[in-house]
Amino acid sequence: MAEIPSLLPNSSGFETTYGNEARDALDYLAWFKKQFDRQLFSFLDQKKKEASEIDPQTQDLVGEIIRFGQNGGKRIRPAFMYAGYISSGGQAHEAILFATLSVELLHTFALIHDDIMDKSDLRRGQLTTHRQFTKLHQLKNLRGKREDFGLAAAILAGDLSYSFAEEIFTEAPFPQERVRRARYFFDQMKTQVVYGQYLDVLGGYKETLTEDEVLKILEYKTAKYTVERPLHLGAMLAGADYQILEAFSRYAIPLGQAFQIQDDILGTFGSEKEIGKPADSDIKEGKKTLLVVKAMELASQKNKNALKSLVGKPDVTKDEIEKVRKIIEETGSLDYCVKLSRELLRQAKEVVTGAKLKPEGKNYLIAAASYLETRI
Amino acid sequence: MAEIPSLLPNSSGFETTYGNEARDALDYLAWFKKQFDRQLFSFLDQKKKEASEIDPQTQDLVGEIIRFGQNGGKRIRPAFMYAGYISSGGQAHEAILFATLSVELLHTFALIHDDIMDKSDLRRGQLTTHRQFTKLHQLKNLRGKREDFGLAAAILAGDLSYSFAEEIFTEAPFPQERVRRARYFFDQMKTQVVYGQYLDVLGGYKETLTEDEVLKILEYKTAKYTVERPLHLGAMLAGADYQILEAFSRYAIPLGQAFQIQDDILGTFGSEKEIGKPADSDIKEGKKTLLVVKAMELASQKNKNALKSLVGKPDVTKDEIEKVRKIIEETGSLDYCVKLSRELLRQAKEVVTGAKLKPEGKNYLIAAASYLETRI
Repeated sequence: MAEIPSLLPNSSGFETTYGNEARDALDYLAWFKKQFDRQLFSFLDQKKKEASEIDPQTQDLVGEIIRFGQNGGKRIRPAFMYAGYISSGGQAHEAILFATLSVELLHTFALIHDDIMDKSDLRRGQLTTHRQFTKLHQLKNLRGKREDFGLAAAILAGDLSYSFAEEIFTEAPFPQERVRRARYFFDQMKTQVVYGQYLDVLGGYKETLTEDEVLKILEYKTAKYTVERPLHLGAMLAGADYQILEAFSRYAIPLGQAFQIQDDILGTFGSEKEIGKPADSDIKEGKKTLLVVKAMELASQKNKNALKSLVGKPDVTKDEIEKVRKIIEETGSLDYCVKLSRELLRQAKEVVTGAKLKPEGKNYLIAAASYLETRI
Repeated sequence: MAEIPSLLPNSSGFETTYGNEARDALDYLAWFKKQFDRQLFSFLDQKKKEASEIDPQTQDLVGEIIRFGQNGGKRIRPAFMYAGYISSGGQAHEAILFATLSVELLHTFALIHDDIMDKSDLRRGQLTTHRQFTKLHQLKNLRGKREDFGLAAAILAGDLSYSFAEEIFTEAPFPQERVRRARYFFDQMKTQVVYGQYLDVLGGYKETLTEDEVLKILEYKTAKYTVERPLHLGAMLAGADYQILEAFSRYAIPLGQAFQIQDDILGTFGSEKEIGKPADSDIKEGKKTLLVVKAMELASQKNKNALKSLVGKPDVTKDEIEKVRKIIEETGSLDYCVKLSRELLRQAKEVVTGAKLKPEGKNYLIAAASYLETRI
């Protein structure tokens, strides 16, 4: 496991508990989350006050964004943005920490809307936003269909979080030209994740996808959005040059793809405790993961038909879930996915190890790859 | 009717057919729409090409935003932004025209999401976005529930249009400091319209609202969003001072409230042809318009109960609609709303007539008020 030295000076308001000892990626994330959450909730508390000046009822929406943040999340995207900034030589720690709120609030928006599209009840082991507002309808003793209210309010809570993400960028205390250039990448990130999500949604309504189609969805929906663009945003705000951006891309795409392939493996073979939602939900939703697509490619005609009828079956039984798992294992698809994710992580690690980056931040990027190597 | 002189120099790419004759607000809007739409569809065509480079299927989303734009809309918000810029002395006509795409694309996002929340089938006499994607599901021969696909794709098409609105701002060819200050107002506009919409949604699920609550919704959902903020955005990009911003606010809020009160009158008493959707939809949806709220306040107990049971009744009959209309008329609510909208327009006109603004643009603002005076 790589060493991560102290990232922070003894500046005011910052805890420098993150010392010179050897720490791994999870420790870095835990340390980062602590600093980050203080800024996040201080920003959201301020927004809640502003909302109350318009009308106390609008606090429902900000309150929901706060609840969503309190329910968990590892702050992976802001942590990558932070690492991109620090490893590119940036030194304005408090400023970058504030700016990283943008990618988390954007992600909150994306998750709230995704949960509506997927009709999910749980997120991080708690009610999803539309379900929470459905409950609020009852608590407030409102008229009309409570599910319709839940849907409308959740769309708006997502939209509001998006709007907050934009505000952060407008107010980010960096030289204007850097903000403008970074914002171009932020715009790209938002557009690309919508395209990636559309391909993913569309895939769910098709009978089959090819491996290339799945990898493209992983690239746009996860790799660019979770790793590449956050790193780029940090780099741009630090004034990094083209070479650094390019190295970040070559690290981020395979790392992000590997991360999602692992998530899909956990989503089918993991426990509810590990993933915060029922372990059969990917199969129930008919998610065209690489696991499923590769199994479809390799399976006998009989097993192909079984996969077609069981993946996406809303009332799929426990035995049927077991059958799907067994086919994924026996076709060699599970093995293929595990090996592919390892190879992708190897590539990512090689790129970042050789890149000209400051050791602070760079070490986290190496540690992130190392951590994923041990994850499944 | 006020005179509007030529707004534009003989610059390349612009038609200067808008001459020195006396024209009214509708002529100005028609002229503006022609210039504006050329930029809008050229921008969207470019985006469609970019989308096709990611994956040809993502063109569905951009294609839907194009279809939405082609189905109509008067471009009121960009026209106000343009007028705000010109009347503040701005002279970069092509640059401001490009920048005004931002408020229209933001509005496209808001309407697409509103139609989902209201479960509307028609917008501007054509299918709403979620209904259009429901149809696409059939055309593409996809699996699964077509309404679920329609909902998911429409949420994404809205999100994409929002993202385009942001891109426009990032690329707006104005001095960076002005863009940043204008963007602060843009952020406010987005946040406030979400709060306004939430209050409106919430109102739909309550038994009654007060007149003050309705006026607050009109202020946030319509007046600020449709008139005040677009004027401010134009003014900021022209480098206008505080006095101009303040005059725009005092013009915009009453004008916007009057406009919405009129819309609500047309939405209950107008014809389907005038409003592009069935003339009973406001009553069917249970919209708490000022018309309804005032009638509730003034009606006898018997008529109060009738309003409560009929407004928002999904299977309301033609006779029942007529009964609601009759109560609104007989209580004096219709008369009250007509008079209030006239008084608000008088205030708006007085403010803008006395404001220190360039005659180009200012004349449109006067003409807009004059036009609304003749609308109902």
